[in-house]
Amino acid sequence: VTMRTTLTVDLGERSYPICIGAGILPGLGARVGEIDCGPRSAVVTDPNVAALYGSSVMSSLEDARLAPTVIELPEGEEHKDLQSVAFLYDRFLDARLERRCPVIALGGGVVGDVAGFAAATFLRGVPFIQVPTTLLAQVDSSVGGKTGVNHPAGKNLIGAFYQPRLVWADVRTLRTLPRRQVLAGVAEIIKYAVILSPDLFDLLEREMDRVLALDDDLLTGIVRLCCELKAMVVSKDERESGYRSILNFGHTVGHAIEKLTDYREYLHGEAIAIGMVLAARLSSVRGHCTQEVEDRVTRLIRQAGLPVEIPAELVGQHLALAIGSDKKVSADRVRFVCVEEIGRTCFDNLTGEEILRYVEEICR
Amino acid sequence: VTMRTTLTVDLGERSYPICIGAGILPGLGARVGEIDCGPRSAVVTDPNVAALYGSSVMSSLEDARLAPTVIELPEGEEHKDLQSVAFLYDRFLDARLERRCPVIALGGGVVGDVAGFAAATFLRGVPFIQVPTTLLAQVDSSVGGKTGVNHPAGKNLIGAFYQPRLVWADVRTLRTLPRRQVLAGVAEIIKYAVILSPDLFDLLEREMDRVLALDDDLLTGIVRLCCELKAMVVSKDERESGYRSILNFGHTVGHAIEKLTDYREYLHGEAIAIGMVLAARLSSVRGHCTQEVEDRVTRLIRQAGLPVEIPAELVGQHLALAIGSDKKVSADRVRFVCVEEIGRTCFDNLTGEEILRYVEEICR
Repeated sequence: VTMRTTLTVDLGERSYPICIGAGILPGLGARVGEIDCGPRSAVVTDPNVAALYGSSVMSSLEDARLAPTVIELPEGEEHKDLQSVAFLYDRFLDARLERRCPVIALGGGVVGDVAGFAAATFLRGVPFIQVPTTLLAQVDSSVGGKTGVNHPAGKNLIGAFYQPRLVWADVRTLRTLPRRQVLAGVAEIIKYAVILSPDLFDLLEREMDRVLALDDDLLTGIVRLCCELKAMVVSKDERESGYRSILNFGHTVGHAIEKLTDYREYLHGEAIAIGMVLAARLSSVRGHCTQEVEDRVTRLIRQAGLPVEIPAELVGQHLALAIGSDKKVSADRVRFVCVEEIGRTCFDNLTGEEILRYVEEICR
Repeated sequence: VTMRTTLTVDLGERSYPICIGAGILPGLGARVGEIDCGPRSAVVTDPNVAALYGSSVMSSLEDARLAPTVIELPEGEEHKDLQSVAFLYDRFLDARLERRCPVIALGGGVVGDVAGFAAATFLRGVPFIQVPTTLLAQVDSSVGGKTGVNHPAGKNLIGAFYQPRLVWADVRTLRTLPRRQVLAGVAEIIKYAVILSPDLFDLLEREMDRVLALDDDLLTGIVRLCCELKAMVVSKDERESGYRSILNFGHTVGHAIEKLTDYREYLHGEAIAIGMVLAARLSSVRGHCTQEVEDRVTRLIRQAGLPVEIPAELVGQHLALAIGSDKKVSADRVRFVCVEEIGRTCFDNLTGEEILRYVEEICR
């Protein structure tokens, strides 16, 4: 028996369903078949995910007469670049994709971001379907329509807002996910709890062990809740002009850490975990929250087994510059997301230099 | 005294004004300044247009405190590719463009398409402003939100729908346009007349000489009317799912001709002129219109001094294949736009092979 829950992201004519469940992967083709698309399809994935889930997905798409072509991108954030996008264009043309032929992203965030950007820009947009197989992608990439690639000058500098037609998230795929990547996903779940949901925060404090043991029902519920929370935020601000940037809690410093370590040392979620600890500390130092709130945030991140300390060698001018070149900079100031209470945030406009000074104080 | 007329393209929250006039170019900066954007800007242009209008545009932007950086793309359709887009990303980063910094396309269709795609995908979208300096771009690229580049496999295969924030069309800039390019723009004006407006068709039959003499008032009125006609079509079908494809009248064969000649021999408008003659002939052969309608279309195109005959060496299997790989193909059939009456069209679904057979019959 598979359990399955569906929520709809309400964006007018661009609305789409997110289906979450345990063991639902073989049902993908039948569900895609309900969308007006075809007659061919492309499955973008990486070699690792292809080996684990490729044949199940391919045969379900074949059964639905969607004539799939599998396209493998090399694994890793370092391949999230314009060359990979150009590679996908070439493969899409080889596969004779037309305007109504869906592109299906099977994998984690990198696969989703690159395939999504290619789908958004191939023939000025073909149907895009997300099949996230990492916890991070399930809770974070399924909602928001962000697609894109990195530029040598920074992360996600190239991209487009493009909504999927369907998201299909099977929490059973997390059982083959390396432990470190599970934790990286948990970091993003903690983020949702801190910025939007005291209830989720309490649940995580109580049930972290069951979360880390990948309990089907608990994960299905948590993934759904995170998608709902993000959908609520995004529906208020689809193009990221203001409110939506609360989702960047922990990301200003997190992105800078990833960048300074060349996207090699830390997983995104790990860097964000450190960024959240810093953001909570800065919130407390700047008087936005109590010491107790800061402590709860730090404690939960530690409880999940995530890193909490910024490496000493990264603190300094480099970090300030990395923060300053982040794309969230407006008129040379950074809109820093702070926590007020568990579940409530505020903004603090700081220059890169101010952030650096605080980071140095904090890390001393 | 400058005359100026403004129309608004109504697309909900993505609505934008098109300002058309004679001698309005120096007023650009002040108008851009009214949009909530800045503090820097990028002007994408080509060496030829830069030499003619660069300093006027730059100083008007400087006066409006928009700190412009000029970026020159090499001229020509062969540079409408992903490399040019990557080049623009690099220059945008050098110019430290942020999310609210406008990208201004000053030039013809190639500059507009490439700059527009780069603007659509840089930081997931920055404000985009069109300053079309060719007749074709003024009547055709100002409306519809199509941006994109070519792929070795075909024209405009990579791209995005992205609306400008403002279009600023000065018909005086057409006085420095090579004659051949003026005619290419007239071809597109004739297209609007054939598919949507018997009145415009009559006007062109009567006043072609004054059009070709670049009369300020007449051109301002015609450019405005074409923009209105296209806006009407596009507002009914923003994402090009159906009705909008009437704008492809003459384009199915036109694109194939451009492709087979490597985009070197014919200007877009010239290829479309030939494509329209073929489409009118095919419409008559297939019984969609009378011989008289076909003759009027052909006569007007000839009257403008545009080419009307498909080169004999292009007719054959190559042409069918080129038509078949066009992106408007759905389930291996081409939705061919035919004319019924001047101002009214219909669709005819044909295979590439059928089109080839008709083309061969027609050209025999």
